[in-house]
Amino acid sequence: MKVITFDAATMAAAVAAGELSARELVDASLSCIAATDGQVNAFTETTAARARAEADAVDAQRARGDTLGPLAGVPYAVKNLFDIEGLTTLAGSKVNQGLPAASADAVLITQMKAAGAVLVGALNMDEYAYGFTTENTHYGPCHNPHDLTRVAGGSSGGSGAAVAAGQVPVTLGSDTNGSIRVPSSLCGVWGLKPTFGRLSRRGTYPFVHSIDHLGPMASSLAGLGLAYDTLQQPDPLDPGSHALRVQPVTSALGKGIAGLRIGVLGGYFHDNAGPEARAAVALAGRTLGAQAEVTWPDAALARAAAFIITASEGGSLHLGDLRTRADDFEPLSVDRFIAGALQPVHWYLRAQRFRRVYRDKVNALFKDWDVLLTPATPVSATVIGTEWLELNGVRQPCRAAMGLLTQPISFAGCPVVTAPLWPAGTGGMPLGVQVIAAPWREDLAFRASQVLADAGVAHIQSVTL
Amino acid sequence: MKVITFDAATMAAAVAAGELSARELVDASLSCIAATDGQVNAFTETTAARARAEADAVDAQRARGDTLGPLAGVPYAVKNLFDIEGLTTLAGSKVNQGLPAASADAVLITQMKAAGAVLVGALNMDEYAYGFTTENTHYGPCHNPHDLTRVAGGSSGGSGAAVAAGQVPVTLGSDTNGSIRVPSSLCGVWGLKPTFGRLSRRGTYPFVHSIDHLGPMASSLAGLGLAYDTLQQPDPLDPGSHALRVQPVTSALGKGIAGLRIGVLGGYFHDNAGPEARAAVALAGRTLGAQAEVTWPDAALARAAAFIITASEGGSLHLGDLRTRADDFEPLSVDRFIAGALQPVHWYLRAQRFRRVYRDKVNALFKDWDVLLTPATPVSATVIGTEWLELNGVRQPCRAAMGLLTQPISFAGCPVVTAPLWPAGTGGMPLGVQVIAAPWREDLAFRASQVLADAGVAHIQSVTL
Repeated sequence: MKVITFDAATMAAAVAAGELSARELVDASLSCIAATDGQVNAFTETTAARARAEADAVDAQRARGDTLGPLAGVPYAVKNLFDIEGLTTLAGSKVNQGLPAASADAVLITQMKAAGAVLVGALNMDEYAYGFTTENTHYGPCHNPHDLTRVAGGSSGGSGAAVAAGQVPVTLGSDTNGSIRVPSSLCGVWGLKPTFGRLSRRGTYPFVHSIDHLGPMASSLAGLGLAYDTLQQPDPLDPGSHALRVQPVTSALGKGIAGLRIGVLGGYFHDNAGPEARAAVALAGRTLGAQAEVTWPDAALARAAAFIITASEGGSLHLGDLRTRADDFEPLSVDRFIAGALQPVHWYLRAQRFRRVYRDKVNALFKDWDVLLTPATPVSATVIGTEWLELNGVRQPCRAAMGLLTQPISFAGCPVVTAPLWPAGTGGMPLGVQVIAAPWREDLAFRASQVLADAGVAHIQSVTL
Repeated sequence: MKVITFDAATMAAAVAAGELSARELVDASLSCIAATDGQVNAFTETTAARARAEADAVDAQRARGDTLGPLAGVPYAVKNLFDIEGLTTLAGSKVNQGLPAASADAVLITQMKAAGAVLVGALNMDEYAYGFTTENTHYGPCHNPHDLTRVAGGSSGGSGAAVAAGQVPVTLGSDTNGSIRVPSSLCGVWGLKPTFGRLSRRGTYPFVHSIDHLGPMASSLAGLGLAYDTLQQPDPLDPGSHALRVQPVTSALGKGIAGLRIGVLGGYFHDNAGPEARAAVALAGRTLGAQAEVTWPDAALARAAAFIITASEGGSLHLGDLRTRADDFEPLSVDRFIAGALQPVHWYLRAQRFRRVYRDKVNALFKDWDVLLTPATPVSATVIGTEWLELNGVRQPCRAAMGLLTQPISFAGCPVVTAPLWPAGTGGMPLGVQVIAAPWREDLAFRASQVLADAGVAHIQSVTL
C-alpha cells in the first residue's frame, strides 16, 4: 500500500485525484484487519466481498468521470447493531443469532454508501449496548490497541479499537450513556455524539429509545466532520428524529474560537475525575483559554435518572426473551435488564419528568457559555476483568464508573466531540476530553476541537501490532 | 334580558352591532346560574366581579369604536382545572384546596379574554379528571339538566351541564379518554376534542401528560368553531404542543361534504353500542350518505393501553399525596391511582410502544376515509349512583363503560366533534355521535358536523329548570 495519512479526508482526496484506487484502500484495510484483529477482536464479521464491490463501483465512477462522493473510497465499519443487508444484526448478543438476516441497510449506512464510503464489516460491542467496556462474554472482549491487556471501552468498543488499530479511519457507533465517548476516550480516537434527535436511528437495534444516539468515530477531526456531514438527514420515519435541517460542520472547522465563551466543568465533574483526567481537561482548558470553572446543574440526579430510564426501557424491550432464555444473555448485564423491567412505573415517570426540568436548566446554562469541557472518562483504560476502582478515595464499581462523566451530558441531549488527549501518568494511554455545546450547536464543539487539534494537544497515536 | 338565540356567534354579533351590551349578557348569565345551579351543580365558583369588569371593558372598547374580538361579550366558564388568576385550581380535588392561588390565567383563558369573551366561573369535574360521570364526592355530583336524577357525564361534567342548562353558551374542558365527548353526549351539547398537541395546555392541572387534550364545548357548531379558532396558537412552552400553524375551521363550515369519503365504524364500536346509540349513529350516517361500515384497528387493545398509561401517569403524578393523605382523595378513583403508580414499568412502556404502531395503523385508515362516525357513549345518561350496566347482554362497570367508544379514538390523537343527537328510546335524553377525522383535519369533522346541524339532526334542546 502506498504511504498515506490514516485519515478519511486525505484518503477521499487521494481517490478523487487518482493517486490511489478505492480497491487499493479497501484491500489495505482488509489486510490490516486480517493481520491485527486476532489480537484486537474489534470485528465480529468482515464484509470483504461487499467491500470490494463497493470499492470497484467507486473506481468505475471515477473512470467514467462521474462526480465522486465526499467519502469516495474510504473504508469504514459499523457497530454490529446497525442493519447490514444480508447479515443478522447481532447487537452483541447470542439471542439475536436466531433472527433473520436484515433485508436492508440501516439509514446511516445508506448515506455512507451514497457518499462513496466502503463498508468492510461489523464491530464488537457490549451485548445490547448495555456496558462501558466491551467485555463481551459471547464474542470475547475487545482489546485496547494501545495495551492489549486493557479494555477498549464500550459499548462501541469495536468502533473505537478499529480506528485506534489503524484498521479503518471511520466507524459508526451508538451512545446512550457514553457508548461513543467512553471508547473514544480509552482508545484515543475522535468521537461525536450528536444532539439527541439529529441522526436517524432507523435500521439499528435499539437499546433505550428515549436516549439512544448514533454517531461517528474517526482518526481525525476532519474525518469526523466529513462523516457527520454525510450522516445528517432529517428522517420523519424515526419518531426520535427532530432535526429539521442539515447543518454542516466541515465549513465551520476553520473559524477558530475568537469570541466563544469556554468553561471547564467543576463540582461533580471535578470530584469524579482522577488525576490524569483532571490533567487532560486542564490542558484542554489552557489551550482554549477557558475562562472559568462552571457548575453543571443536577449532574448526580441526572445520572440516577438516566440509570432508571435505561434499565426500564432496556429491560422492557427484552423482557420476552428474559422470561424464556435468561441464560443466553450477557452475565454482566442480565440482572440489570430483569430488575429494570420490573421497576415501578413511578420511578420511570419521575425520571422522565425530572429530565424535562433538567434539560431546561442545561439549556439555560448555555445562555452564558458556548463550549464546556470535562473529561470523557474518570480514568484511562483499565485492565480487562477489573471489578473495582478507587477514584479520589471512593471505591466505585469499575464498569459503571466509566460513565460517571458522560451520562449527565447525554441525558440533556447536548452534542459532544470527544477529543483524544494523552496526559502524563497513564503509562502512555489516552484519555479523552468532552467538548460540549448546546443542543443543535455541533459547529461550536467542532470549532473548539479544531483548536485542540491544531495545537497538537489532541490527536491519534499509531500503534504497532 | 332581550330575547336572543343562545349561541356565541349570535351574541358576539349582537354586541358588535350594539343591540346588546356585554354587561347585559354577563348579568343574564350570572342570573341564570344563580337561578339554576342549585339544581345542576355545574359551577364550583363564579367570578362575578371579574366577569363584570371584563364585560365593561368590552363595552368601553365598543364605545370607543375599537375593533371587537370575535367573542366580544360572550360569557363562558372553564373546568376547574384551568388556572384562573387569584383562585386556587381545585381540579375537582380536596387535596388542592391547600395550594396557593394561581398567579396567572391559563394560556387558553388568556386567548379567550383577548377575543373578548367574559369568564363567569369554574366548573365541576371528576377529581383530577379521573372519571366519566362527575359524581364528585367532595363537591357533589353534577346533575344532568335534561333529567336531574341522571349524571352529566365526565370528567368535564360541569362544562357540559352549564351549556345544556343555558347558563353559558361556551365552556372549556379537557379530554384524556373521553372527558369532553362523554358529557357532550350525555348533556346534548356540541364538543370538540382537537388533535393531540393542537392546543396549549399550559396553566392547566395535568392528568395524563401524554394523552391530555383541552377543547371547547358549545351550544352551537358555529360557536364551537369560533371558540376553537380563538384557542389555536402554537405554544413552544408546552412540550406536548405540536401545532406549527393555526388552521381556522370557521371558514370551512359552509363547504359541505361533496367528495368526502364518510364511513360508520363497525365491529368493536357496534358491539359496544346500545340500541339507542346505534340508532343515533345510523341517523347520522344516513344524513351524511355514509358509504360503508369501516373497521377501526385494534380498538380493544388501544383501550387497554390507554387504561395502563392513564393509571400510570395519573398515579405517579399524585403518589406523594397518596402516600400521606389517601383518605382525602375521591373514593371512586383513589384505588386506581395507587395501583397505577405501582404498575411494573414494562406494562407502561409496552403500552407506549403499542401506541406508536397503533397510530400508524389509524393514520393509514384515513388514506381511505375522510370522516368516520361512531356514538360517543354506549348509552344515554344513567341515573346518578348506577354501578353496573347491561350492554348487549354483557355486564359492564357503568362508569368505566362510558369511555368504551371514546378511549380508542383519543389514544390515536384524532380530532373529534361530538354532535348532539336525540334518538328515540332514551326518554328524551340526548346521545352524541363522534365525527372523527385524521389528525390535524378538524376542518373535515366540522364540515360533516355542519351538515348534521343544517339537517336538524344534531342540535341542542332547551330545558326548563
